[in-house]
Amino acid sequence: MTKRLFEIDPWVIQTTALATDDKRLQESITAIGNGYMGMRGNFEEHYSGDTHRGIYLAGVWFPDKTRVGWWKNGYPKYFGKAINSPDFLSIPITVNGVDVDLAKVAYQDFSLRLDMHNGVLRRQFTVTIKDAQVRFAFMRFMSNQTRSLAVIQVQAEVLAGKAQIVFAPRIDGDVHNEDANYDESFWQPKAVAPNCLTMATKPNPFGTPRFTVTEKMANTFSGDGTVSRHMTQGTQAVQEILTTELEAGQQATLVKYVAVITSRDVPKDQQPTAAQAVLDAAVAKPVTTHLAEHTAVWAKRWARSDVQIHGDDAAQQGIRFNILQLFMTYYGEDARLNVGPKGFTGEKYGGATYWDTEAYIVPMYLATAAPKVTEHLLEYRYDQLPGAFHNARQQGLKGALYPMVTFDGIECHNEWEITFEEIHRNASVAFAIYNYTDYTGDTDYVLTKGVDVLVAIARFWADRVHFSKRNGQYMIHGVTGPNEYENNVNNNWYTNKMAQWCLRYTLQILAQVSDQKAQALAVSGAEKAQWQDIIDRMYLPEDAELGIFVQHDGFLDKDLRPASALDPAERPLNQHWSWDKILRSPFIKQADVLQGIYYLDDEFTLAQKRRNFDFYEPMTVHESSLSACIHSIIAAEIGEVDKAVALYQRTARLDLDNYNNDTEDGLHITSMTGSWLAIVQGFAGMRHKNGQLRFKPFCPDNWTGYQFKLNFRGRLLVVAVDNAGCTLTVEKGDALRVFVDSQPITLTPGVAQHLAN
Amino acid sequence: MTKRLFEIDPWVIQTTALATDDKRLQESITAIGNGYMGMRGNFEEHYSGDTHRGIYLAGVWFPDKTRVGWWKNGYPKYFGKAINSPDFLSIPITVNGVDVDLAKVAYQDFSLRLDMHNGVLRRQFTVTIKDAQVRFAFMRFMSNQTRSLAVIQVQAEVLAGKAQIVFAPRIDGDVHNEDANYDESFWQPKAVAPNCLTMATKPNPFGTPRFTVTEKMANTFSGDGTVSRHMTQGTQAVQEILTTELEAGQQATLVKYVAVITSRDVPKDQQPTAAQAVLDAAVAKPVTTHLAEHTAVWAKRWARSDVQIHGDDAAQQGIRFNILQLFMTYYGEDARLNVGPKGFTGEKYGGATYWDTEAYIVPMYLATAAPKVTEHLLEYRYDQLPGAFHNARQQGLKGALYPMVTFDGIECHNEWEITFEEIHRNASVAFAIYNYTDYTGDTDYVLTKGVDVLVAIARFWADRVHFSKRNGQYMIHGVTGPNEYENNVNNNWYTNKMAQWCLRYTLQILAQVSDQKAQALAVSGAEKAQWQDIIDRMYLPEDAELGIFVQHDGFLDKDLRPASALDPAERPLNQHWSWDKILRSPFIKQADVLQGIYYLDDEFTLAQKRRNFDFYEPMTVHESSLSACIHSIIAAEIGEVDKAVALYQRTARLDLDNYNNDTEDGLHITSMTGSWLAIVQGFAGMRHKNGQLRFKPFCPDNWTGYQFKLNFRGRLLVVAVDNAGCTLTVEKGDALRVFVDSQPITLTPGVAQHLAN
Repeated sequence: MTKRLFEIDPWVIQTTALATDDKRLQESITAIGNGYMGMRGNFEEHYSGDTHRGIYLAGVWFPDKTRVGWWKNGYPKYFGKAINSPDFLSIPITVNGVDVDLAKVAYQDFSLRLDMHNGVLRRQFTVTIKDAQVRFAFMRFMSNQTRSLAVIQVQAEVLAGKAQIVFAPRIDGDVHNEDANYDESFWQPKAVAPNCLTMATKPNPFGTPRFTVTEKMANTFSGDGTVSRHMTQGTQAVQEILTTELEAGQQATLVKYVAVITSRDVPKDQQPTAAQAVLDAAVAKPVTTHLAEHTAVWAKRWARSDVQIHGDDAAQQGIRFNILQLFMTYYGEDARLNVGPKGFTGEKYGGATYWDTEAYIVPMYLATAAPKVTEHLLEYRYDQLPGAFHNARQQGLKGALYPMVTFDGIECHNEWEITFEEIHRNASVAFAIYNYTDYTGDTDYVLTKGVDVLVAIARFWADRVHFSKRNGQYMIHGVTGPNEYENNVNNNWYTNKMAQWCLRYTLQILAQVSDQKAQALAVSGAEKAQWQDIIDRMYLPEDAELGIFVQHDGFLDKDLRPASALDPAERPLNQHWSWDKILRSPFIKQADVLQGIYYLDDEFTLAQKRRNFDFYEPMTVHESSLSACIHSIIAAEIGEVDKAVALYQRTARLDLDNYNNDTEDGLHITSMTGSWLAIVQGFAGMRHKNGQLRFKPFCPDNWTGYQFKLNFRGRLLVVAVDNAGCTLTVEKGDALRVFVDSQPITLTPGVAQHLAN
Repeated sequence: MTKRLFEIDPWVIQTTALATDDKRLQESITAIGNGYMGMRGNFEEHYSGDTHRGIYLAGVWFPDKTRVGWWKNGYPKYFGKAINSPDFLSIPITVNGVDVDLAKVAYQDFSLRLDMHNGVLRRQFTVTIKDAQVRFAFMRFMSNQTRSLAVIQVQAEVLAGKAQIVFAPRIDGDVHNEDANYDESFWQPKAVAPNCLTMATKPNPFGTPRFTVTEKMANTFSGDGTVSRHMTQGTQAVQEILTTELEAGQQATLVKYVAVITSRDVPKDQQPTAAQAVLDAAVAKPVTTHLAEHTAVWAKRWARSDVQIHGDDAAQQGIRFNILQLFMTYYGEDARLNVGPKGFTGEKYGGATYWDTEAYIVPMYLATAAPKVTEHLLEYRYDQLPGAFHNARQQGLKGALYPMVTFDGIECHNEWEITFEEIHRNASVAFAIYNYTDYTGDTDYVLTKGVDVLVAIARFWADRVHFSKRNGQYMIHGVTGPNEYENNVNNNWYTNKMAQWCLRYTLQILAQVSDQKAQALAVSGAEKAQWQDIIDRMYLPEDAELGIFVQHDGFLDKDLRPASALDPAERPLNQHWSWDKILRSPFIKQADVLQGIYYLDDEFTLAQKRRNFDFYEPMTVHESSLSACIHSIIAAEIGEVDKAVALYQRTARLDLDNYNNDTEDGLHITSMTGSWLAIVQGFAGMRHKNGQLRFKPFCPDNWTGYQFKLNFRGRLLVVAVDNAGCTLTVEKGDALRVFVDSQPITLTPGVAQHLAN
């Protein structure tokens, strides 16, 4: 079922085959970006075969008219989408008058290579056209030094014959989203000038901001032949035509520098000037300098985040690919941004922000990047509180409901069972505040801004529960848990448990805020008492006989059976079964009870974890990219090592091996952290609580070892594990007391402490 | 909250006010039709104010591209819609060169009048334009004698001054559906000829049939002045221009005869000829003759179906309006047709056929029309068995699932919680077969065709249940009951109960079929045994303490409270509350447990009925047009007379008083029977079982009496009830033994039998 297009290599994603039948999949995997902008692995030159061209600019979006089967009250009015930006990658090329189009001309020596050290994409091929044999070599990156700059280089070398080569670098505003609901274009042209195009998003009736974007290029040429060049422009495209003639053995190099300026940062009338300034600085340095500066940024990132796996290059490649792609999507420079489910690699799902960020991404950034990165993710939600209040009001509820899908805090997706009911997302927003506070030790954030979010969320839960007189308990009806293969259930254990946790944590934090803050929050004694009553009398479905937490009321009435009983031809279920059949089946898309056990880890005994894992894992089909890592972590903890490793493989190579048969739509960016979580929290058993780190490491049988680094409260800690034991070193910072297999160990800076099994 | 545009009158719907602010509502109420075609109460002449023009032809539909928020496996691919036909009503008129447009010219003496004796719509007004005062009188009907013929008459009389009057009768193919999902037109022109337009529905990718329609007009003119006339035609419109000049006291009459021929009956190349034949016959007779023939058909219908209410003209008007509108929509002439939720009066909801037909409409046709009418409704479902098999297959299930919304048997609406889950509709299709068989005594139908439907439905249920090992019972998870204010619930009592009933009735009927039929059906002994096991071990939620049947698992956990506790400003809930809030509230859109009690009447004691009514009625908000009548019937049975009468009023005048604030979209055609059911089954307590009729009549306090007729096994029975008692008369047919208040009484033909209270 899986499909692998690229070779196994620890640091490189490469192939010598152009996957004409899987071009979209190949494009997804060779996507690159720099947090500010990104693009799918499309070709510079014209390609007439199946392709999905896509370039996306962070934070530039459009409220597409929504589609619903039947309108229901409270539905959001638009579906916010990351929009395909004016195409600045394009460099049509002809050789002796023939279009270099790999879908039409014969080629050899094709190679495609993404270097994971620095996110640089290279491509090469040789074409023979009208007696001329020409080798083309492409190189591109989005600069991490100057984030509004894209560097695209084409080198042509004539191997035989004589060639007139025309390069036609262009910027083209005639782009559209494949996922537009009504095939509408989202852009309109504003201005064209030599090599410079300004476009704006169309007006919309929803009051969301419009964006203006200027893209300007400077094309430098060097080569053995002379060049003639001239510029052209249309209503929404600009182009430069560079023509050169080369003999055998001669070569030419075109560098297309593109500056991309958006109204998020620069007012529209100043954009052309700003773009020119970027280009002036760009052309003043050779490409090699740009590349070196760019690579240096990456080197720093890798120095604190690389995970080494010894003895399993496929696993090694998987995790590096995940870290690379995640960091190319977001590295926390801009608190107005977040991590979209497809990043810059596709359009599906729309929106910029899902609960994935808090649930899966925050823990990794906490440990692999500066605290500021995570803080920016928290501030994003803080800044969007007005939207969250709006969402709750739309449902007639108090407090704040963070959206399932959003750009600006306002819910922008329409499925009642998800947007109205998958409210557990609110708990993850709160949990991320706890996570940040506990991991970093920084209480400033939670006591100033975080508590505003916590109180707003607590007020939502307190209004969303109802008291069942018959049972004498609080309940939460009509929800969808993390397992989206059940909708509109009552008393989802995970949701109820996390709502209870939110109220409890909010009360804890409230007890610590300043008088002034307390006054501003105005949580009355009666309100606190009500929250405490909900905490005390929250209904949490359990089954005493099975010794498990029950996914929701009614789950145990289902026709319970293991996923192994399914015909493999029916997998994945979501591509084969009618939706109603999925809903009433016992099969679980994504960890639900186990997600709660993962979050509230130390509230449960190992025996409880084991019983719940043993009960739920066999019914879990992991058809969400977010599922496998949580199961892997719990499997590791309860000693199900083989299972933990198998689930790691699935999460680490989800896209590289196209496990879910949908990577052609784009990468699963928000689940990229899964492999990191599985290694660090699963295999190494890392947990944190009250400023203390704990480990319980093991090494998978077929690995000879693995190593990762953690940023923790001013230290850089190196953790290396092999079959003999583990070695811990504080590489930077002060001494640190940690627990390994429940034993306290004090680590002296610079001294590797080895602990045998 | 209600809005009444027309005067109270036993036989007429009339007003002297043009409701410019409620034009659409006025248009819905003045809709007319003849089962073959129908139209909203639009104006002949141009009207530039807000209006919703709509003419619909029975069985002519289009598969509109569907809209869903997020595609799910198994979803139907199109949403079938009754389409707005080429507009043949239109007669633009000018007086002295000025457009007669009531939104722009001054007028007086306006009146609008729908005669319920015969469904003839009349309208009159006087305009003063450039010193000429002209009175216009319009009259239109769709002939019940020649169903493809519409007769539209305009009379103009000059009261003062001198007027050049131009009538421009036209047929215009440039029409669209307001509810088109993508604003697409569904028609394309095929041919124009003098006064004759042929249009065809556009090609579609779904393999559903295309329709060709020819509309041709013959315009006769008579008057005191001379007339000049000429014809024009465009690419998709034809028109005739008739110009006359009249002095004060002179008048002119235009009759526009329109023949409407569709490819459902006549191949497209023969349509113009067929239309001409209809017109030739039409113009050969004066309008008065047409009207008399048409009215004679109605007189026969009323003779067997009229319900007289004495002492309450509002109630009287309501029920006649309902019967009129229902019979104008469907009178059983064509077994390929059914009763759409809006009939010919609007577009909302799409589709032609809902479970409303079997649940609400069949019982009334059984008693008020020839058995053939009901038989046609049953055959419609029999003929659509292949579609029902298709629907079940789409969900991976055996047997047949009748669609929620359809034209051809294939489900054509998309909402997973409805189309996939509101499967109780299957039970109503089976129950209608029982109802027909029991009422008429005709067993031929059920033993030849009906049993095919029953077995297919039984097989669906047997596959759709699952066995809960924990409970040792069969369950049905993931359904939506008649109460659509709860979705995706488990063990809906009504659904489980009716599934059990279907299996039991099918086994009963199977025991009676011929050997040959049994062989063809091939229901094995094992299959029958499995059905019996499901019957025996079906889980039916009950609450012993409350003594009620429980709507579904979890209902009693809700925050139960009466609808009277709601702020009236929040009603109707579906226009004020977010969908999720409605779902988890205890408020009931439509009878659910009570619907089951209504169907399986004699399985329950009066005490059971009372307890369930007392429990559920206070939480029922009746925001479905189908709800009130069932509650009224049960209220009547348990002696809650005031409640029964109040609920009757709501159902009888639902549209005339615009109770649900949505009649502007069209009339609630399928709930038109509600008032009849409330009187006959509620107030008169009529029940039938094994060929016996029972009554338990009472007369509402503010009525002096009421009377209705029943067709029953060859008799015409007149039932008259007043405050003193009831009088039963067999007006036609043999003697009949009935039960009144449980006492057997034998009725001698022609002898009125009075029974005092």
